[in-house]
Amino acid sequence: MKNFPQGFQACGIHAGIGKLKSKPDLGIFFSREICSAAAVFTANRVKAAPVLLSREAVRSGRARAIVVNSGCANACTGKRGLSDAEAMVETTSAALDLKSGEVLVASTGVIGKFLPIQAVKSGIKHLAAQVHRGGSDPLKAVHAMMTTDRVPKFDSREVRRGGQSYRIWGCVKGAGMIHPNMATMLSFILTDARVAGAQLKPMLKRAVNESFNCVSVDGDTSTNDSVFILANGGSGVSVAGKAGLEIFEKNLKEICLSLARQMAADGEGATRTVEITVTGARNDSDAKKVAAAVATSPLVKTAVFGNDANWGRIMAALGRADAEVDPGKVAISFGNLPVVKNGMDSGFSEKRAAKILRSKVVPISINLGLGKGRAKYFTCDFSLEYIKINADYRT
Amino acid sequence: MKNFPQGFQACGIHAGIGKLKSKPDLGIFFSREICSAAAVFTANRVKAAPVLLSREAVRSGRARAIVVNSGCANACTGKRGLSDAEAMVETTSAALDLKSGEVLVASTGVIGKFLPIQAVKSGIKHLAAQVHRGGSDPLKAVHAMMTTDRVPKFDSREVRRGGQSYRIWGCVKGAGMIHPNMATMLSFILTDARVAGAQLKPMLKRAVNESFNCVSVDGDTSTNDSVFILANGGSGVSVAGKAGLEIFEKNLKEICLSLARQMAADGEGATRTVEITVTGARNDSDAKKVAAAVATSPLVKTAVFGNDANWGRIMAALGRADAEVDPGKVAISFGNLPVVKNGMDSGFSEKRAAKILRSKVVPISINLGLGKGRAKYFTCDFSLEYIKINADYRT
Repeated sequence: MKNFPQGFQACGIHAGIGKLKSKPDLGIFFSREICSAAAVFTANRVKAAPVLLSREAVRSGRARAIVVNSGCANACTGKRGLSDAEAMVETTSAALDLKSGEVLVASTGVIGKFLPIQAVKSGIKHLAAQVHRGGSDPLKAVHAMMTTDRVPKFDSREVRRGGQSYRIWGCVKGAGMIHPNMATMLSFILTDARVAGAQLKPMLKRAVNESFNCVSVDGDTSTNDSVFILANGGSGVSVAGKAGLEIFEKNLKEICLSLARQMAADGEGATRTVEITVTGARNDSDAKKVAAAVATSPLVKTAVFGNDANWGRIMAALGRADAEVDPGKVAISFGNLPVVKNGMDSGFSEKRAAKILRSKVVPISINLGLGKGRAKYFTCDFSLEYIKINADYRT
Repeated sequence: MKNFPQGFQACGIHAGIGKLKSKPDLGIFFSREICSAAAVFTANRVKAAPVLLSREAVRSGRARAIVVNSGCANACTGKRGLSDAEAMVETTSAALDLKSGEVLVASTGVIGKFLPIQAVKSGIKHLAAQVHRGGSDPLKAVHAMMTTDRVPKFDSREVRRGGQSYRIWGCVKGAGMIHPNMATMLSFILTDARVAGAQLKPMLKRAVNESFNCVSVDGDTSTNDSVFILANGGSGVSVAGKAGLEIFEKNLKEICLSLARQMAADGEGATRTVEITVTGARNDSDAKKVAAAVATSPLVKTAVFGNDANWGRIMAALGRADAEVDPGKVAISFGNLPVVKNGMDSGFSEKRAAKILRSKVVPISINLGLGKGRAKYFTCDFSLEYIKINADYRT
C-alpha cells in the first residue's frame, strides 16, 4: 500500500456480520505508538452507539486504534447497542494491550439490528493476533468498512520537508446516504507526522467542510458518519510552525477532496460525477446553498443520467435555494459551453452539450452575477441502478 | 362534469404547443359573470412570465377567465416571454370581450423555450369561439393543463345551505417537481357561491398550506406554480357570516386535500401513495419539518417501492430534520403495526409490514413523544419509472 504511514498496521477479516463471505466485514487500524487524534461526527440527531462512544473517547485527543465493522450500523439499538459498542472497544483494548480510551469504534450497515457480538469479539481476537504477528494488509481493512461501495477508496501524499518526509494516508467508505455533514460515510486518515492534538482538530474540521461536507449522492444523512485522524509521529517529522502546518493542512485537504470525489464517483448507481461550481454569489454561504440545492435535485440528477441539457431544472433548483438570486443575471455553463446567459437560453448546440454530459466528470458552472461568493459541490447522476440498489438493500 | 359550478364554461383544444396531437394543450376557464378571485404562487425565486403577470392581475381581486397551456412553461424566457404571456392575456380578453386585467394566465412544461405564439393565439380564438357558442367540456380543459400526469385530477362538493346549494369544483395538474410551495403544479378552483375577494384569499392560503404545501414527489419546486380560485356567485348563494364561511372553508380544504392526494398518487413513476402523519412534536412547525424530511428522503421512498420495512431510514431522515428529536422517545407505525418503540425495533412481523407497504396508500405514523405538534404529509414511492420519465423528459 503506497505511502501507508510508518508505525501503523491495518488488518481486515470476514467475521460473519455481513452476508457476503468473501468480503471482510471487520477491520482494525493500529498504531505502535500513541497518536494525537481528532474526529468529526454526523450532525444527525439520531446518533449510532459507536458515534456516542467514540465522541467521548476522542475528547482526550489521543488514540492508538480504530475498530470498524460493516454489515450492521449498531444504530437505534438502545442500551444493548451501547454495551455492544463498548464490548468492541474493550475486546480490542484487551487483545492489543491498550489502555481504555485509546480505541475508537465505527460501524456501518443496516440500522436497527443488533450486532452478532460473539462473532465480532472472536473476529477482533483473530485480528489482534494478526497485528501481534506484525501483519498488515490495509486494503483488506478498507474492504472491511465497505457496504454498497463498488471500489475501495483511498489516497495518500508523501510530504518532503528538508531532507525528511512524512506521509498522510486516508480511506473512505460511502456510496449511499451521502450528504453534507457526512452521511453514512466513514473516513480514517493516518499520518506518521507528529502533530499536536490541539492543531489536528481545527485542520480536520476545515478539510471536512470543503470536501466531505460538499458531497451529495441522495440528500440523505446518516446516523453513523465519522472521520478520524490519527498522527503517530512515526516518521520522526514534527509538523509545527506556520509554514509546516500550512503544508500539512494543504495535503490533508487534497486527500479529503480526493476521497470526496471518489465517493461521488462511487455513488450508488452513479454512471458519472457532477462537479458544481458556483461563483458570483452574494457570499460563500449563499454559494454553498445554491450548489447544494442543484446537487440534491433529483430532476437535475436524472437529466444528467439522460444526457439531457435541461438547464431549466438547474434554474428551478437554484431558485428554491435560500439564497439571493436575480434570475436575469444567472449564467450557466457545461464545461466551456455557455448554456444560459442572463437567465435565458444561450442558443447553445444541444449536440455539444450532450457530449459534455456524457463525460465521466460533468462540470457545471453557475455564475449568479451578484458578488464574490463561491463554492464547489460534488454529486453524481441518478440512475435506474440507484433505485434498484435501494429498493432491496436489506433483502 | 359533476358539480361543475353554474355560470362557468371550460374548453380545451390541441393548439400545437405539445408534441402529442391527440392531447389538448390549451384551455380556457370562463365565467359569464365577474368573479371574486384570489391566488397563491410559487415561492421559487425564478418565476415564470405567466406567474409575474397573473400576480399583478389578481391584485384587483377580480377576474373572469383563466387561459392555460401545457408543453411550454414560458419560464426563463426574458422579455419575449413576458410579451408572449401578455399576448395570451390580450388575445383572450379581446376574443371573449373581457376587460384587460380580467384574465389570469398559467403555463407548464419545458423551461427555457419560447411559446409558438402564433399557434397559441389562433388556438385561443378557436376556444373563444367555442365559449361564445355556449360550449363547455371541463374534462378537455383539465387535459389541456396536463404534462406527465397519467390521469386527469379533479374533485368537487355540493354544499346545501337552507334549501339552496352552491358548488365548489377544483382541478389540479402536477406529477413531477412536486414539493411544498407548489412545485410545477397548477390548480384552478371554481365556485358558484358568492364570496367576497377579501375573504377568499386567506381561506385559499390556509387550504393550500394544509394540502398542496404538504405534498412532495421529488423535493423539487418549480417556476410556474399557481393556484387560482374564482367565485362568480352563479348559484345565488352568498357565503358570509362565521358559520357560512367556516362551511365554505371546510369544503374548500377537503377539495384541496383530495387534489393533493390525487397528485401524490399520480407522482411520476409512483406505484403507491405514502401518507406520513407526525404527532408528539414540540410544535406544529417541528412536526411539519420532520414529516417533510421523511417524505423527501429518496432512501425512504425507494424502501417503500421495494416493500422493505427499513425503518432505520425513517429514523435517519427524521434525525436530520431541523426539529427537536429525542431518538429514545420515537415510535413509528406502519398502519396499525408498531415497528419502532422507544427508538428501537419493536420486534414486528416483517411479513405483516411488507403487506402494509404493498397497499395502495401506505400510512406511516411517527410519534416523537415530546409535545402536541402534528402534521400530515403526502408523498409517493420512488420507482424505476421515475428515473426513466425524468432522464428523457425533453426527448
